[in-house]
Amino acid sequence: MARENGIRAEIVAVGSELLGADRLDTDSLYLTGELNRRGIAVRRKHVVGDRRADLAETLREALGRADLLIVTGGLGPTEDDLTREAAAEALGVGLERSAALVERLRAYFARRGAAMPERNTKQADVLAGAESLANGWGTAPGQWLERDGRALVLLPGPPRELRPLFAEQVAPRLESWLRRRLGREPEPIVMVRLGIADMGESAVDEIAAPIYSAFDGIETTILAARPGEIELHLRAPASEEPRLHALRERLQAALGLAVYTSQGLALEAVVGEQLRRAGQTLAVAESCTGGLLGARLTAAAGASCFFQGGVISYSNDAKQALLGVAPETLARHGAVSGAAAGEMAQGARRALATDWALAITGIAGPGGGSEAKPVGTVFIGLAGGAKVEVVERRLVGERERIRQWSTTIALDRLRRALAGAAAA
Amino acid sequence: MARENGIRAEIVAVGSELLGADRLDTDSLYLTGELNRRGIAVRRKHVVGDRRADLAETLREALGRADLLIVTGGLGPTEDDLTREAAAEALGVGLERSAALVERLRAYFARRGAAMPERNTKQADVLAGAESLANGWGTAPGQWLERDGRALVLLPGPPRELRPLFAEQVAPRLESWLRRRLGREPEPIVMVRLGIADMGESAVDEIAAPIYSAFDGIETTILAARPGEIELHLRAPASEEPRLHALRERLQAALGLAVYTSQGLALEAVVGEQLRRAGQTLAVAESCTGGLLGARLTAAAGASCFFQGGVISYSNDAKQALLGVAPETLARHGAVSGAAAGEMAQGARRALATDWALAITGIAGPGGGSEAKPVGTVFIGLAGGAKVEVVERRLVGERERIRQWSTTIALDRLRRALAGAAAA
Repeated sequence: MARENGIRAEIVAVGSELLGADRLDTDSLYLTGELNRRGIAVRRKHVVGDRRADLAETLREALGRADLLIVTGGLGPTEDDLTREAAAEALGVGLERSAALVERLRAYFARRGAAMPERNTKQADVLAGAESLANGWGTAPGQWLERDGRALVLLPGPPRELRPLFAEQVAPRLESWLRRRLGREPEPIVMVRLGIADMGESAVDEIAAPIYSAFDGIETTILAARPGEIELHLRAPASEEPRLHALRERLQAALGLAVYTSQGLALEAVVGEQLRRAGQTLAVAESCTGGLLGARLTAAAGASCFFQGGVISYSNDAKQALLGVAPETLARHGAVSGAAAGEMAQGARRALATDWALAITGIAGPGGGSEAKPVGTVFIGLAGGAKVEVVERRLVGERERIRQWSTTIALDRLRRALAGAAAA
Repeated sequence: MARENGIRAEIVAVGSELLGADRLDTDSLYLTGELNRRGIAVRRKHVVGDRRADLAETLREALGRADLLIVTGGLGPTEDDLTREAAAEALGVGLERSAALVERLRAYFARRGAAMPERNTKQADVLAGAESLANGWGTAPGQWLERDGRALVLLPGPPRELRPLFAEQVAPRLESWLRRRLGREPEPIVMVRLGIADMGESAVDEIAAPIYSAFDGIETTILAARPGEIELHLRAPASEEPRLHALRERLQAALGLAVYTSQGLALEAVVGEQLRRAGQTLAVAESCTGGLLGARLTAAAGASCFFQGGVISYSNDAKQALLGVAPETLARHGAVSGAAAGEMAQGARRALATDWALAITGIAGPGGGSEAKPVGTVFIGLAGGAKVEVVERRLVGERERIRQWSTTIALDRLRRALAGAAAA
């Protein structure tokens, strides 16, 4: 835990909708990232509904423990928006209505051609002693209050308001407060994200743990990021940056080609960059994934310079008509077979006139499995140059996991082939 | 809040990984759903790391407030797994090692051909007075403890262990406890989920609020579920079921064809069911969505009886070669145009010999927009029978949002066409 500077933060998310079965507090992930980058650890998080007594009690308890308390949500204009009132109660201070803020709110509505509803005036109530934080993206201003060396921050819940408000208004105050708290310039935290494809979490840990455990003071986290992908996060204070990179290099050497990025890039972005650099193009042929691989390749803008498109060959007719898979192949080996995967890849490459093509066919389940080909059996075909390479995998998990995992294996086959071609 | 029975629950999720910037506690959503169905409201949620003092303090505070406290995680065999110890400390009771549980653990490892590591024995420690809850899906048993009419439940964190363990071991104990607490049979909660496509949240609320606000005692929640989709959740005790359905009917009548389900089905499942019932087939042609519509149609098993497949026509070459879009159409109107969308739909229908075809072409951004066709401009083509229908939309948001939203509009166009055909 060397990355911590001893400052203890807590986050309270306010809103009854966050206590239901449908919605999680995602603001705290963003805030935690921003705090961690500044060496501040989040020690507890809380979710509390729109009951004033619950909210005031939660805030009172957290204020008794935390050096820094960030509260999100409950700053709207409705009766249910009680964060201001509860914070005043918890702190034992009053709320003061700011005439300047009332004017700002009126102007906000006027710009939209509307009169300000009367109820919005309560958004101009500021905790005694607090600074108001102008919100250019909505009606709810934030608040910043320091007392006895501790800081309380109130922020609106919607991410499109919270994030820019944090960056513009909170970050500079936070850094100044941190400087004063620590009595020195706070040391920034540096982070490295290694992405590892097609290796299990325990296999990665078995190789990585003996290495990283020798690097005291560098915090290492293993995350099962997506099916078939593992992330290793390395974090250290900036003064440890040379050692951080020494650790990164040792991990990369030990994990070899399984590491697809040391810069936190997505696997599809790495493959896209390889293709761009080689000036080559790609097509896909998808059966059980139904378009998921194409969707993943086009999730980020800019894919058009290497991705031509593909065929979703869900039915056997489509495999024959659009990809030219031979009826005998389907009859003899089945649509889920190495032979079919190979012909699908060749067919997509031919139909879209590309340098490379990836094909996926498999049994994503829950039905359709057999003893010879149980649910999770997946064949990946890769066509390029004069070669067609096919791999078979037995994946474990639910349908969506098997589908996602298949796209990762497919992308990783191409990545390894492109890396080999570049090295040759 | 008529659905509540006055029982106050809190949930504590344990694990330092849940205090980072990458991972949220999703167990609490599942647990909240299970509790709400039994009329129990969750009043607060907490996340706390693997520090024993923090954990014990959080549990002590929550035990002082909650009638029912569920703690997830921290039941593993490592040094960081401290939930048992912290709960014992918070309750002021001892831990007793169960010889029977040690035997069970040994047997668990033996079945996997391994000796039990010594450290796993601590998983056999049970709070004095607690029942151990057998975990058939992993090594960490749960625990159930009643004291002074209150209940404490410890559960393992991994969802694939927590969920079956809850269903098998916790649910019956919870219901028995609830019966004793309330001194009567607990009244189950009934719930209706209306799905509404292609209408904004405020437009839905404007129509729905005057209706549901006249139904006291039925809790109504509006959720912006996915881009372009709104959910209305209606909840009431079982005794109110006739009024719940009266409300549902009034909402359906007022919202009309925009309601695609009153049974909580996904939009793609509704469309799939319509096609199945009509014995008709579907193909897709996707440009900016890159396969997302196909992926969505095949997310649930069973799509093969209506979904033939499609073409991902990311490049203009693919639009011409695989869908037969005329070069003049692309030259005169551009690839993002109503004419192109119409020809793409017709081409997909022809290539895959289906009854219907949906096509999507648009500018998902962030680049590529112009004054005439800004980012978010999307054309949806629907071919079926002798007709081709094209709609144009201007969607707002980030790239992934625009792509998701486009697939919803496409599915909804087909749903409305099929509903019209069925009514005719």
